[in-house]
Amino acid sequence: MASKSTISFLRSLQQKKFRNQEGLFIVEGPKMVSEVLKSSFVVKHIYAVDEWNPESNIKVPLEIISNSEMEKVSGLQTPNKVIAVVEMPDLTGPVPNLEAGIHLLLDQIQDPGNLGTILRIADWFGVQSVICSPDTADVFNPKVIQSTMGSLFNLKIHYSSLVDVLVKNIDYSKWPVYATLLEGESVYNCNLESSCFVVLGNESKGINPILNSFITKGLHIPRPKNGRSKAESLNVAVAAGIVCSEYARKNNP
Amino acid sequence: MASKSTISFLRSLQQKKFRNQEGLFIVEGPKMVSEVLKSSFVVKHIYAVDEWNPESNIKVPLEIISNSEMEKVSGLQTPNKVIAVVEMPDLTGPVPNLEAGIHLLLDQIQDPGNLGTILRIADWFGVQSVICSPDTADVFNPKVIQSTMGSLFNLKIHYSSLVDVLVKNIDYSKWPVYATLLEGESVYNCNLESSCFVVLGNESKGINPILNSFITKGLHIPRPKNGRSKAESLNVAVAAGIVCSEYARKNNP
Repeated sequence: MASKSTISFLRSLQQKKFRNQEGLFIVEGPKMVSEVLKSSFVVKHIYAVDEWNPESNIKVPLEIISNSEMEKVSGLQTPNKVIAVVEMPDLTGPVPNLEAGIHLLLDQIQDPGNLGTILRIADWFGVQSVICSPDTADVFNPKVIQSTMGSLFNLKIHYSSLVDVLVKNIDYSKWPVYATLLEGESVYNCNLESSCFVVLGNESKGINPILNSFITKGLHIPRPKNGRSKAESLNVAVAAGIVCSEYARKNNP
Repeated sequence: MASKSTISFLRSLQQKKFRNQEGLFIVEGPKMVSEVLKSSFVVKHIYAVDEWNPESNIKVPLEIISNSEMEKVSGLQTPNKVIAVVEMPDLTGPVPNLEAGIHLLLDQIQDPGNLGTILRIADWFGVQSVICSPDTADVFNPKVIQSTMGSLFNLKIHYSSLVDVLVKNIDYSKWPVYATLLEGESVYNCNLESSCFVVLGNESKGINPILNSFITKGLHIPRPKNGRSKAESLNVAVAAGIVCSEYARKNNP
């Protein structure tokens, strides 16, 4: 049985303020908890209903709680069988020297679903790192974690001024900086270099003009010219998927 | 001022049962309402707060409501300035003869955000039609409409047994039927034909086995072989975006 204070503690971790205060975040559901247990993240505590069957022996303090208690602590519409409390690594330190490969720069991505989906794409395509502007949504938001399907635990993620990263790139690596734009070179024709940055902009405002001078090439996903298409833009996560896919087809023969 | 019965009527249209009963659905926000007014959909009534500025003269009954009334009727977390009540076309009739081009077959897509994003992709890439299995989410769900960003009003959408559509295809057009699978031919190497179907499966269960015998070719979006990638799958809307993009690069030179 969970005490009242445990329940209110777990509920508080739905909020960024308390996650930062405690240095902890939560992971829900058998699949996701199994992923985090296999990862390098430090799981502090597990709360589960009686029916939960862990994949292997777990060495983490485990407390069995009732279904109604799980309902109270869960952030999901359909509460799950298990919830893990996990140490939150500090992602705001200085960005280390970046390894060769593709790096995504997220400029104020706001929607948790989009952010989680982008992280899942980054993992699928083996992206080297994801660097989030400080005003991008919190990757430890439970909705983000849910949409990553576990990919969060397999990625190098940093929160940093994107300008700082790009200034350092000018001094050292000089990798090209691509950005998804509504105008630019067709992504199909562009020879995406094997080490590069791809900037993805905010859902409604696009890319912050402060980054413009750093962009080597704008990439455009063309619409058919038959006039049938009337959509004004693609969802940012879909655009990220298409650009990563183009990178993969050109760089992973 | 909106009467109590108007408020409860508008709220009821958040639910599929009442939408079907009334043959009406709602569209929220200046951008979306502007799109539906320009479309062939029949707008029956508009409710707006005083500050709403329509793009052009509107010929639809308009009622000014207060901000607090808008808050009560809105399905959005941040209520918008305007809400339109629109006639719901019947999408369940017999599927007409399909025109040459690419057609998406949605097999039990459940998440409203995914469904809306797929419709936005379909519009962007000029997809000829989107055919939804009867157990796919409702395209008139307000969350779906919101994620389409207006693309709903520019697409041919049908709800039908996918088997019926594919049986008819065998008898007549004989277009290839592609399906996004975790194994199959790399989508980068496949010569996607200009007239074809692409089957997209349920978020957790994948494609219904009843459709297997109709599938001409499974398409696979490859991960890099360096072992860095650990994601088990891509989000279905992202997969749809990548396949449509590959179709576009091969068929819209």
